[in-house]
Amino acid sequence: MKNKLTIVKVGGFIFEDEYKLDSFLSNFSKISGDKILVHGGGKIASNFSKKLGIIPLVLEGRRVTDKETLDVVVMTYAGLLNKKLVSKLQKLSCNAIGLSGADANLIRAKKRSIENVNYGYVGDITHVEKNILQKMISSDLCPVICSLTHDGNGQILNTNADTIAAELSVALADLYDVSLKYCSEMPGVLEKLGNYDSLIKTINSTSYKKLKQKNIISDGMIPKLENCFHALKNGVDKVFVGSIDILNSEEKSTQLKI
Amino acid sequence: MKNKLTIVKVGGFIFEDEYKLDSFLSNFSKISGDKILVHGGGKIASNFSKKLGIIPLVLEGRRVTDKETLDVVVMTYAGLLNKKLVSKLQKLSCNAIGLSGADANLIRAKKRSIENVNYGYVGDITHVEKNILQKMISSDLCPVICSLTHDGNGQILNTNADTIAAELSVALADLYDVSLKYCSEMPGVLEKLGNYDSLIKTINSTSYKKLKQKNIISDGMIPKLENCFHALKNGVDKVFVGSIDILNSEEKSTQLKI
Repeated sequence: MKNKLTIVKVGGFIFEDEYKLDSFLSNFSKISGDKILVHGGGKIASNFSKKLGIIPLVLEGRRVTDKETLDVVVMTYAGLLNKKLVSKLQKLSCNAIGLSGADANLIRAKKRSIENVNYGYVGDITHVEKNILQKMISSDLCPVICSLTHDGNGQILNTNADTIAAELSVALADLYDVSLKYCSEMPGVLEKLGNYDSLIKTINSTSYKKLKQKNIISDGMIPKLENCFHALKNGVDKVFVGSIDILNSEEKSTQLKI
Repeated sequence: MKNKLTIVKVGGFIFEDEYKLDSFLSNFSKISGDKILVHGGGKIASNFSKKLGIIPLVLEGRRVTDKETLDVVVMTYAGLLNKKLVSKLQKLSCNAIGLSGADANLIRAKKRSIENVNYGYVGDITHVEKNILQKMISSDLCPVICSLTHDGNGQILNTNADTIAAELSVALADLYDVSLKYCSEMPGVLEKLGNYDSLIKTINSTSYKKLKQKNIISDGMIPKLENCFHALKNGVDKVFVGSIDILNSEEKSTQLKI
């Protein structure tokens, strides 16, 4: 029987409220069994960019990561935010170890090729070094992984945190029974915008198509759910999308099923 | 017989010249046997502080780390510089893993108590978790450690990189034959300021006292050499102070002896 592993991805919103962050980390530290935390931090990076006089460039709804922006992203994700999470988890007796994809060659990526748009230093994952993660986990360490990868040729790359969480889950699915939990500001997928009582408890491939047609699932929720289905189709046991409350109870969330 | 372990500390100057950095890392990656890299980055952090409008406060020759400065220091050391070193070492087939003292509870410290001066978020080391370092090293990982520690209570602390290198060396001295190499902009201790031919090849406790009396050793060199003697007195095998050339040849450096 495989060990249970919970992979939690939390969005950058969590850093905007210290009380909420502490409460989230307290619940995270109480998850029984092995666990990994994946985080982004786009909003905080944007704030620092502005302070440094770097104007964020967004093309077709996606951020362009030029050299200067990448530096800010690395400073924010791997520095400020990752070490905040790690030191706070240490306080909670969770032996956290902060990592980027470059550390221990954990996550390799390929710089996205220029087709219509040059997104700059953005990476698409090519390989996850699952054995080193397993070694860490079996040493009772809790990996806290920020949304950066590397190309193996000296270049750090900015990579979507949802995608990192999905690819880690897939890579580790033959070693563990993986539950993947996406925590965002929303309680899951809502039938009616803003109406929390209209939470959709389960979405499968068929209902997903219908919900997209009806425009109930749109914009940023599409790539997130694509990541969910990718994980499920590649051996991940359970996938949930919800608010930070899903760490307490999976009831208040949307569970994805194939 | 114990394995050989080389601990190299390099100052922030190395980040000011990309060519020099690459050459240093190439030589570092070629060190045979187990190795650890410790780095600071004060100058780069100061530059970012200025860009963000934070005025560095220096009291009695030492930097005061207030909350805002600490954030910049964490971003610079654990983010920008640490990940630059790690990704470049990965390119050189050196399986680097970037760490702060908070990661894996590696280096605990106590916030310096306020006596005459409040230095802010500065930590004095109380414990090094040597077993986890040994596990990493025996997994063929190369720890790259930035000059940050934590208090175990959720607080990251700024800690002198020379001191971190010395304390790591001392902690690991009963597991390895440790050589500690301090790389700075100077080729070692010079008898005559600016005259590289006047390099002092060896300094022991007796000659150290005399050189201090003659003011040949002064200012920042004093705490550095105090760290060296602390390491030697506590089991570290060899200690050298020199330029980055000591990675090639120990000839062009000052060796400390008890």
